[in-house]
Amino acid sequence: MVDILDRVRNKALQSKIVTPEEAVELIKPGMTIATSGFTSSAYPKAVPLALAERMKKDPFTVNIMTGASTGPEFDEALASVHGIKKRLPFQTDRTLRSQINDGTVDYIDIHLSEVAQLSRCGYLGHIDVAVIEACAITEEGNIIPTTAVGNSASFIQSADIVIVEVNNAQPLEFEGMHDVYLPLDPPNRLPIPIIHVDDRIGTPYIPCTPDKIRCIVPCDIADHTRSLAPLDATSQKMADLTIEFLKREIEAGRMPKNLLPIQSGVGNVANAVTAGFVHSDFRDLTVYTEVIQDGMLDLIDAGKLSFASGTAFSPSPEGMARFFKDIDKYKKYMILRPQEISNSAEVIRRLGVIAMNTAIEVDIYGNVNSTHIAGTQMMNGIGGSGDFARNAYLTIFYTPSVAKGGAISAVVPFCSHVDQPEHDVDVIITEQGVADLRGKSPRQRAKEIIENCAHPDYRPLLRDYFERADAKTNHAHTPHLLDEAFSFHQRYLETGSMKM
Amino acid sequence: MVDILDRVRNKALQSKIVTPEEAVELIKPGMTIATSGFTSSAYPKAVPLALAERMKKDPFTVNIMTGASTGPEFDEALASVHGIKKRLPFQTDRTLRSQINDGTVDYIDIHLSEVAQLSRCGYLGHIDVAVIEACAITEEGNIIPTTAVGNSASFIQSADIVIVEVNNAQPLEFEGMHDVYLPLDPPNRLPIPIIHVDDRIGTPYIPCTPDKIRCIVPCDIADHTRSLAPLDATSQKMADLTIEFLKREIEAGRMPKNLLPIQSGVGNVANAVTAGFVHSDFRDLTVYTEVIQDGMLDLIDAGKLSFASGTAFSPSPEGMARFFKDIDKYKKYMILRPQEISNSAEVIRRLGVIAMNTAIEVDIYGNVNSTHIAGTQMMNGIGGSGDFARNAYLTIFYTPSVAKGGAISAVVPFCSHVDQPEHDVDVIITEQGVADLRGKSPRQRAKEIIENCAHPDYRPLLRDYFERADAKTNHAHTPHLLDEAFSFHQRYLETGSMKM
Repeated sequence: MVDILDRVRNKALQSKIVTPEEAVELIKPGMTIATSGFTSSAYPKAVPLALAERMKKDPFTVNIMTGASTGPEFDEALASVHGIKKRLPFQTDRTLRSQINDGTVDYIDIHLSEVAQLSRCGYLGHIDVAVIEACAITEEGNIIPTTAVGNSASFIQSADIVIVEVNNAQPLEFEGMHDVYLPLDPPNRLPIPIIHVDDRIGTPYIPCTPDKIRCIVPCDIADHTRSLAPLDATSQKMADLTIEFLKREIEAGRMPKNLLPIQSGVGNVANAVTAGFVHSDFRDLTVYTEVIQDGMLDLIDAGKLSFASGTAFSPSPEGMARFFKDIDKYKKYMILRPQEISNSAEVIRRLGVIAMNTAIEVDIYGNVNSTHIAGTQMMNGIGGSGDFARNAYLTIFYTPSVAKGGAISAVVPFCSHVDQPEHDVDVIITEQGVADLRGKSPRQRAKEIIENCAHPDYRPLLRDYFERADAKTNHAHTPHLLDEAFSFHQRYLETGSMKM
Repeated sequence: MVDILDRVRNKALQSKIVTPEEAVELIKPGMTIATSGFTSSAYPKAVPLALAERMKKDPFTVNIMTGASTGPEFDEALASVHGIKKRLPFQTDRTLRSQINDGTVDYIDIHLSEVAQLSRCGYLGHIDVAVIEACAITEEGNIIPTTAVGNSASFIQSADIVIVEVNNAQPLEFEGMHDVYLPLDPPNRLPIPIIHVDDRIGTPYIPCTPDKIRCIVPCDIADHTRSLAPLDATSQKMADLTIEFLKREIEAGRMPKNLLPIQSGVGNVANAVTAGFVHSDFRDLTVYTEVIQDGMLDLIDAGKLSFASGTAFSPSPEGMARFFKDIDKYKKYMILRPQEISNSAEVIRRLGVIAMNTAIEVDIYGNVNSTHIAGTQMMNGIGGSGDFARNAYLTIFYTPSVAKGGAISAVVPFCSHVDQPEHDVDVIITEQGVADLRGKSPRQRAKEIIENCAHPDYRPLLRDYFERADAKTNHAHTPHLLDEAFSFHQRYLETGSMKM
């Protein structure tokens, strides 16, 4: 217990240290629990594990709000005991996903920038308990977050009571890496005063008082982050196309030589693109993103990164080890902010972010599906993709042109779910090439997307659809054959392949 | 010519006064012409009419960018001589619409807040000539706009040359009603310092220099605005439901007593809702919108409006006459800003706007179609609806539950075009009732929309679709039958009715 006492700097609060089993007695069936956690970072672990154990014996459900996805000690643990009734705003857990898609869990898929405001304004129901992972609690009762800030500051403000999970596995060196700014709500909101990615506008802790903290739970479980997949040729090709495209933008005078702040989603393509920057001759790069991953460490080591702002630091286990080894160096290049600031429409548009996100599918007119498989099955959620896509200076969506060994075309006649409307999409990149949609009408976009981005196996089918739709509608603004708009998806559902 | 000389206050510029026929000699085939004009306000008239006359004799095309829609002396005049090749970002003209839907015109449908930035950043092509309607030109060469600001300030900055159309039909009293602020582009952009709807942050004129003004054309044609339709029972019902809904929001503590700044779209429903406020007991209302219409004059006269900010003042002819009669009183309550400020994501989210816009159709999960009839035919364009819907504190979409005497249901299984994804829609109101979608999963939303908003004639069909989709997908997150998703639209196209 020595360690935890060092981390709970307010002596009176030390008397509130309890076991996870004692803490979860505060949680009643039907309550709404709002927690820390963004991607597989900074989520509480001991409390949800204890809650799941309690639910095993005495089944009940609660509603869960987080920053974004969490790790297996949280979403999987609770889902596997059928403990979640309502969940928002994002998740990536397999067990939970299946319950979202079988009617067990009510899932509300929300732009990540908007969750805190919606919650404070009372649109998402009352928050009974906040459960927040911390590196430490200050003498004043303020909370030092760990690997993410997420919605923690807002949730603590709104919750009736707060359970703090003090995690000994998170190095105390995280202290100072956070910048916590909680905007006032309308009609009292002021401009968010970020002009450069490294501007500090808040406090290095989440404001809280000892009174509000009902109990403190020690934990020593590390973030369950994922290993990086090795770079595959498809991702590599998309990364190369991106670097070439951006160089042409600079040559055309549409961007400064060190680009504009970069946002990149999570996953293989994002990793490949970041690796592309490492090996490029770009310098003084800046990053204004959600999730900071391994690639940023590479950029720092290569001397190419000026600064990275995010809401979560979610490297692979190897990346985390590398970070811990040289934490004093790396932390100078990074800041973690609340997600309503990292994903703020205001700040993203002001800074002129280059947004690079992955699509599940795109249609021939440039609409993007970010969430649903075959229009019905929720994959993860929209996450921050809409926050960045709508407000970016340049919005790029990526997808391999085919999936499942060619049985699925990522370019379809009509997206089976539209998360990013055509109005929000500037560029689509597959391993086949680049479709530059800027300033083009839907019919011009269709040609650009089919000829540059679709897989050659699917181009004849897509051309055929477009040409027949164009003829049948007498060249309408957006030609479609409504009885065939989902024919690719239907064929896949019926035959296992979108091919004829 | 006395009048025009009074309005061109720089003596040297008076020598640049030419006829419209002389001015249009500056326009060459294939050029990109960027103009003033937003809704049927402040668009140039003499120059497009002369250009159309020239095109009649010597056919050629140009590309046209505006603020938004224009009047018949512009879009109709040019479209009727097939003079437009490319058009953006919005239009409402019947002739032009038919050319957009028959492959003649390449139409690019863009969020109105984004046009100026996209244009300055070089995404929309080079601007050869700006044609801007003005009340007057100052001694310094600065331009006093008329009934709208739109994109004029940005277009003047970017264009090679400027043609100013000085309109004697626009009262000089408009001087002082404008607040022109042109943000720097990334990486140099600063916060837009609007905290209250009446904050003045710019100049009362559009900055320009005498050198840049190539010629000046006198004009005495008034804005061709539309008469108001009488309030119909359907719109009146939606307005009543809105007032009741907002009162409940105040009671629930989710809004201040004087609400938050209101944005309302153009048309019957917007007029009815505004009339609803006139007859309500709300006070000290504020407005942060695109287009200021007759209803604002009513609110001023009723003593209920504190201030209205917009980019265009587009009342009916009767409203304009009423405004002109008491201009010194009314102008104290109004400000006109560039559309990248009136529709700014940053400002809309900061102020916490209540966004009220009309949908063409909505689907059972809350997606909204704002642009396309039956998924293929462009109606007008997205306009500012996306700017407001995405960033508002509360986003309401309106539609009568049926159209064409009941042959069309505005609630459909799957929107035939998605402009506002489910993530952006809080509330749907038809004359049948209110669907409050906040914090609900798609399956919960479907019940809310079908039971509260769909016309009773269509509820059984919609329930049947939802229930079969729910069963077939084993209660997927978003149940759909892809082979029937557009069955309502197909039935309408085949039989003239969506009914079975």
